Amino acid sequence: MPRISESTVRRLSHYYRVLEEVEAEGGRLISSHRLAEREGVTSAQVRKDLSCFGSFGRRGLGYNVAHLRQEIRSILGLDRRWRVGVVGVGNLGTALMLYRGFEKQGFDVVAAFDRDPARIGKPLGNLVVRDIVDLPVVAKEPGLDLGVIATPLRAAQEVADALVAAGVRGIINLAPRKLFVPRHVALRTVDLTVEFESLSFAIANVAARGRRRRPNSPG
Amino acid sequence: MPRISESTVRRLSHYYRVLEEVEAEGGRLISSHRLAEREGVTSAQVRKDLSCFGSFGRRGLGYNVAHLRQEIRSILGLDRRWRVGVVGVGNLGTALMLYRGFEKQGFDVVAAFDRDPARIGKPLGNLVVRDIVDLPVVAKEPGLDLGVIATPLRAAQEVADALVAAGVRGIINLAPRKLFVPRHVALRTVDLTVEFESLSFAIANVAARGRRRRPNSPG
Repeated sequence: MPRISESTVRRLSHYYRVLEEVEAEGGRLISSHRLAEREGVTSAQVRKDLSCFGSFGRRGLGYNVAHLRQEIRSILGLDRRWRVGVVGVGNLGTALMLYRGFEKQGFDVVAAFDRDPARIGKPLGNLVVRDIVDLPVVAKEPGLDLGVIATPLRAAQEVADALVAAGVRGIINLAPRKLFVPRHVALRTVDLTVEFESLSFAIANVAARGRRRRPNSPG
Repeated sequence: MPRISESTVRRLSHYYRVLEEVEAEGGRLISSHRLAEREGVTSAQVRKDLSCFGSFGRRGLGYNVAHLRQEIRSILGLDRRWRVGVVGVGNLGTALMLYRGFEKQGFDVVAAFDRDPARIGKPLGNLVVRDIVDLPVVAKEPGLDLGVIATPLRAAQEVADALVAAGVRGIINLAPRKLFVPRHVALRTVDLTVEFESLSFAIANVAARGRRRRPNSPG
C-alpha cells in the first residue's frame, strides 16, 4: 500500500459516512461522481483516493456500496473496537462521554478520569469517574488504546505524558495548546477556539477590505 | 496586508494563547525562539508569520508581549464581541453552551435552538432553548454573527441553509458531514469522528507494517 496522506485518510472517513448512509437507504451501487458530489470534491479525486487501495469499481457501474464500505472500514482500522479513556470530565469531557456517535464507529469510552476530588467517584453514563493517578492501573487492565485530553490548558501536557507512559497509542487533544508526544504515539488536536478565531479573522478581514456583503450585520 | 494563509491564522491563534499565558505570568518580552518552542515550530516561522503584519520585534530583545498580543488580537478580529447561536442542544451543543472558554476570547453564546419540543423552552445556562423556527427573528434582534451546528448529521445542511438565510457570516459545523454554504459565509468543520478515525488508521497501519513498538498493546 502506498504512503497515504492525512488528507486522503480524512476523505476516506467522509466517504465511509456517505457509504453508510447510502447503504442504510438501500443503495447497492454508487458512482464516483455521486460520492464526489456528496463530499464536495471531484470524481477524479474520489477515483484517485480509492485507487490507492486496489480496484473497487466497475467501469460504468460504479462501486459496490457494501463492499467498498467494508474495505474502507478495514483500511481505517474500524474492524476492531478501540478502548478510549477520557481525561478531564468538565463540560467538554462529559459531553464526549455521553455522546454515543463514536461508539457506533468502534470507539468505546471505557474510562473517565479527573483530578478534582469533587468529581472522582461520581457516576457518569455507565462509568464511575476515577482519580487520574489510577491511569496506569486502568491502562494495564482492562487496557486503553486511545486517550482524550479534555482538561484545562495548563494540565494538558502533563496528562499527555501520563497517557504516553500508560501506553496509549493515540491521543485526541481538545485543550487549546500544542502538545508534544513521542513519534510512536499518534496525536490529533481539535481546537475549537482556533476554529472560532479563524472565523472571526475571516469575517473581520472581509469587512476591513470593504467587501462586506451584509450591510445589516453588526460591526 | 498580504494574503494570509489559513495555517498562518491558526498559528497566530496559538501565538496569541502563548502570549496571554506569558503576560499572565508577568513576562514583558518574548523571543521568537521561545514563542516557537512553545508552539513546536521554528523561530524563522514565527518571524515570518509576524512579519506579515509589520515589525513588532526588536533585534536581540524580542517582542513586547503586551503589544504583540494586542496586535494579534486585532488581526484575529478579537477586539469586538461576537454573537453566537448554537443549533442543536444535545450533549455536544449543551457542552458548548456551558463551556466558558470561548467567552473569554470574545465569543458570546447568546441563543440556543432545537426542534425537539421536549427541549424547547427549557433553561440552559442563562438562556432558554428556542424553537429553530425562531432563528430569523433572533437573528434580526438581538442579532447573530456566528452559528454553531451541533445537530444530528441529517439535519445539518438544512440548518446551515437556515443560518445563511438568517444572515450569519460564519458557521462552525460539528456534524460529521460536508456542508455547502455560499462563498460570503465562512465555514469551519470540526469533525471528531474523523479525528478518531485518523488515529485508528495511523495505529492500525503502523501495526500492519510490523512497526508496532508496544508489544503489550491490545491488537
